[in-house]
Amino acid sequence: MQVLLAEKYGFCFGVKRAIRITEKIAKSNPRTLTIGPLIHNPLEIQRLQRDFDVHVEEDINRLGESKNVVIRTHGITKQNLIELQQKGVEITDATCPFVTKPQKIVEAMSKEGYHIIIFGDSSHPEVRSVMSYSIEVPIVIGNLEEIKNIKRIPKKIAIVSQTTKQIEKFLEIVQYLIANSLEVRVFNTICNATFENQEATRTLSQKADVMIIVGGKTSSNTKQLFFIAKTHCKDSYLVEDENDIQQQWFADKQICGITAGASTPNWVIKNVESAIRALNS
Amino acid sequence: MQVLLAEKYGFCFGVKRAIRITEKIAKSNPRTLTIGPLIHNPLEIQRLQRDFDVHVEEDINRLGESKNVVIRTHGITKQNLIELQQKGVEITDATCPFVTKPQKIVEAMSKEGYHIIIFGDSSHPEVRSVMSYSIEVPIVIGNLEEIKNIKRIPKKIAIVSQTTKQIEKFLEIVQYLIANSLEVRVFNTICNATFENQEATRTLSQKADVMIIVGGKTSSNTKQLFFIAKTHCKDSYLVEDENDIQQQWFADKQICGITAGASTPNWVIKNVESAIRALNS
Repeated sequence: MQVLLAEKYGFCFGVKRAIRITEKIAKSNPRTLTIGPLIHNPLEIQRLQRDFDVHVEEDINRLGESKNVVIRTHGITKQNLIELQQKGVEITDATCPFVTKPQKIVEAMSKEGYHIIIFGDSSHPEVRSVMSYSIEVPIVIGNLEEIKNIKRIPKKIAIVSQTTKQIEKFLEIVQYLIANSLEVRVFNTICNATFENQEATRTLSQKADVMIIVGGKTSSNTKQLFFIAKTHCKDSYLVEDENDIQQQWFADKQICGITAGASTPNWVIKNVESAIRALNS
Repeated sequence: MQVLLAEKYGFCFGVKRAIRITEKIAKSNPRTLTIGPLIHNPLEIQRLQRDFDVHVEEDINRLGESKNVVIRTHGITKQNLIELQQKGVEITDATCPFVTKPQKIVEAMSKEGYHIIIFGDSSHPEVRSVMSYSIEVPIVIGNLEEIKNIKRIPKKIAIVSQTTKQIEKFLEIVQYLIANSLEVRVFNTICNATFENQEATRTLSQKADVMIIVGGKTSSNTKQLFFIAKTHCKDSYLVEDENDIQQQWFADKQICGITAGASTPNWVIKNVESAIRALNS
């Protein structure tokens, strides 16, 4: 069986930057806290805790003795940021600049009187952070059907996307809005790393007969890669590390493709790749 | 053979309004001039000349003795309007309000620094009038292929459509722009009458085995109806009046559908309908 890696995969700019920033702060400060997991990869979060004494706390009112707080790649809500600033802790912002962008767009468009629509998962921390910058409650939709259920489409709309969504799905929604509204301001906030990883996954999954996607199970962009792979290669599997791998997946397979989400560290990908190659030999 | 009229066809709000305005002015003023034909229907233009002494002049520098000038439904360029205002003639604006809208949008967006893209035919008077409101030369594209040939897609775009274009084609272009630009402000300026006439033509042409589209051969919206009819019913014909009709079109046909462009007067449609029914009896 041939084992092929996607042309683009793994850590994106925003994740690398956040880890670099966090390690630097943590080196000189004990018990640095991140508000929610810094990135959506439990293995990398474990590594940061073990090697750098970085801890995760979801609740901004339970900071304990920590004096240094890092804001996760997905950002936090505007309200939480203001409250944190009043607590007198040292705040380091590791929000991905590609997430800061839709936050700023939503804030500005909302002030200009546009109704905000966000294409994304309303429970995802990135979307919650972006939502919080709208003056009025924004419309958050996960797919085209949801927008079709809205009785009154606003006349003046500004739309952004969660950075890790598929452009094709975003465009479907935008099409519907344009046909049913007067003005639609479209901000393509899908990040380029997401786009490139998705394209490379599409290409690889068209020739592979088994696809392994490595990444955290709560990671939105990893799940998107899984959905794309599944479209072209029915035997696609999402694994967090080499322990999730099952030998029977590879029986009678000719080509195994491997790709990984933007929050998956290289060492985890290497371990998965080695485990697959070992089965093969 | 059954003869069916489309659910919606013929004169739209803007055309009715322009004719009403022009007749009113012409009643009390000899030799009223329109700058270019008021609407794209030669038979109606002939009627206005015969019954109301309304004449057509393309060149604003050749107004002759006329003291009353009417601006056509498609509008004129901003430069021509300024020059006309300096000539001391009485100007009556019969520009369709659905055309004034993209003129204003283009002017405002251009001032805000957006690069203007117009989906339309660059030789059509409506598009020329809308174009003239942009500070920088706008990009005018007639189809998706043309936009794909543009080497550098601007980063901040405002796009409008000629009022008589098909929404599906507009959306294809918008999709491409969103995927290749940072911000796209989309103004759906396709007029509702166009949309309704197109929908009704689509429905009727799906059941008819011969389709007659009545309208001026330079009328953009009439041509769109013809293209839509042709997609579903290969035996579709564009006629200006009953004299264009050929008996052999109807041989062995079961259902003849009739529709008409937004600038086609009802009396012309009636004449065509009667001629077809006469063949039939």
